[in-house]
Amino acid sequence: MKTHTLLMPLDMHLHLRDGVMLENIAPLTAYSFSGAIIMPNLVPPVCTLKDVKAYKERIMAAVANDFFEPYMTLFYKNYDRAFLEDVAEEITAIKLYPAGITTNSEDGVSSFDIEEMRPTLEAMSELEIPLCVHGETDGFVMDREAEFMSVYELLATSFPKLKIIMEHITTKAAVDMLDKFENLHATITVHHLLLTLDDVIGGMMMPHNFCKPIAKRPEDLDALLSIALEAHPKVMFGSDSAPHPRDKKESCGCAAGVFTAPIALQLLCEIFEQYDKLDNLQSFISDNAQNIYGICPEFKEVRLQKREFVIPDTYSGVVPLYAGKTINWAIQDIE
Amino acid sequence: MKTHTLLMPLDMHLHLRDGVMLENIAPLTAYSFSGAIIMPNLVPPVCTLKDVKAYKERIMAAVANDFFEPYMTLFYKNYDRAFLEDVAEEITAIKLYPAGITTNSEDGVSSFDIEEMRPTLEAMSELEIPLCVHGETDGFVMDREAEFMSVYELLATSFPKLKIIMEHITTKAAVDMLDKFENLHATITVHHLLLTLDDVIGGMMMPHNFCKPIAKRPEDLDALLSIALEAHPKVMFGSDSAPHPRDKKESCGCAAGVFTAPIALQLLCEIFEQYDKLDNLQSFISDNAQNIYGICPEFKEVRLQKREFVIPDTYSGVVPLYAGKTINWAIQDIE
Repeated sequence: MKTHTLLMPLDMHLHLRDGVMLENIAPLTAYSFSGAIIMPNLVPPVCTLKDVKAYKERIMAAVANDFFEPYMTLFYKNYDRAFLEDVAEEITAIKLYPAGITTNSEDGVSSFDIEEMRPTLEAMSELEIPLCVHGETDGFVMDREAEFMSVYELLATSFPKLKIIMEHITTKAAVDMLDKFENLHATITVHHLLLTLDDVIGGMMMPHNFCKPIAKRPEDLDALLSIALEAHPKVMFGSDSAPHPRDKKESCGCAAGVFTAPIALQLLCEIFEQYDKLDNLQSFISDNAQNIYGICPEFKEVRLQKREFVIPDTYSGVVPLYAGKTINWAIQDIE
Repeated sequence: MKTHTLLMPLDMHLHLRDGVMLENIAPLTAYSFSGAIIMPNLVPPVCTLKDVKAYKERIMAAVANDFFEPYMTLFYKNYDRAFLEDVAEEITAIKLYPAGITTNSEDGVSSFDIEEMRPTLEAMSELEIPLCVHGETDGFVMDREAEFMSVYELLATSFPKLKIIMEHITTKAAVDMLDKFENLHATITVHHLLLTLDDVIGGMMMPHNFCKPIAKRPEDLDALLSIALEAHPKVMFGSDSAPHPRDKKESCGCAAGVFTAPIALQLLCEIFEQYDKLDNLQSFISDNAQNIYGICPEFKEVRLQKREFVIPDTYSGVVPLYAGKTINWAIQDIE
């Protein structure tokens, strides 16, 4: 049987939520990943040193696995330097949400006034705290990410030493930014390497493929695939895996988010093999992230086998991407 | 109280389905419209003289209203001239669906081979039977209608005396076609005068706003509004009102279709008044259609009143557009 081994897989954009959902979902990531950047958009958001420490403890308790590192983040606000110095050791990044742009982002940034943000962003730059950004305007749904490029440009040029991560990019416009600004990097999800808007509303309406940013046009998918498959050194895997209970997805007013945490490695093997680029997956899944973030996860080896694997209908009541579909790669010892 | 009277309102594109749904839904249209073009995409589709007559009888039985005229259509196939001569008196138009493009369209046209279609379309042209077209390719969901413009151009130039109706147009591309070809006309729905893709997937996912063709971009909405509000003589109202049971809409894999039949006149009054174009509504809702189709409905007067009207949550288990929303126009005697 053909196998493929990944070392220290990292998920550089993960939603673990809290409470029972956290307890159910966190072990699924900890099983196959060495670590993950944990999004801070809880209700209320993670904004203090105490919040960070307490959330990390809850995650570690849920995971019960010493070989998994939750890389913690703060929810972006205009923090002062003294606070950032205090918290710097405990966090890996700060995540910026435009206000109201996605799930639990109501307390986000409502206008990009660079002068108001300058003290925080300069302190982050000096303390080498990366800024992760959900890059969407409140414009027309298909244009939101492309419209945000001017904000990335403003941030990148105003704070040239600040490491900026364009999170879960979905457009050719974002791909094209990567080589323009030294300090811009990006995460790409697995679902945005598979879906276009056609998979959301092109046939029937498919709530389990509905996420923010929405999957875009075929030419956007091509651009994302191209840069991921070559494992461009400025891109890394971030699942943006977002668990919602089945009834919140399969109802009128379905919540945004695609759940991929337990099947991401398998799907990535399938995609990279399909394009004969399996050798590049190690960089995309871990090495690039280690270089970009300067992190050094503990040794972990995950072996994937080329065999039929039927994606479960649910994991603890959460429906994953491609539920029920048979794919060609499985994680060893996971059915 | 401000009132506005409409004479012989016509719905030039209506789905009444069959059986219990027909019985529940048909009276809602018959109450406020003089007549409607009835879509033939039943299962199986309406393809014979016997089908047409039987379906019309079922509609009249459901309606139980002598002041409503169902203008019957056939499902497009390559019919021969003798058949078309036989059926011409009983139908008002023939509706063409590309195969598999929307609900119950599996038996539609799979390739636009003009020479194969020529005998049918020439006979229709000579017998003055209009051709109604669902104009979408099987391409990317946002491009399907624009991509179909070349087919309209081919049909319009190959059969210059055939009256062609571009059904439920949703794009500026289609609006721009109207003045290019003498024999092209169009219907516009009320929901496409209100919604963009943002209302379908821009916030939460809204199944009751999900239809085919999908609502498009803001500039498309502007183009549709502009031509409807001026009551361009080549456009007419066609609701494309499509009833689906609530559970088929509010579930995974929601069916396409927006239900507007019982609230279309009220919403149109609201839209046309908002733009100070109420005087043009009569042309859009009836006069243009009478001219285009050469039909002469029996006299009927529908009075609308400017007062608060809360759109019901359901009509016989079917959720209408804007369910629960308060609008400013009501039909007299209808709460």
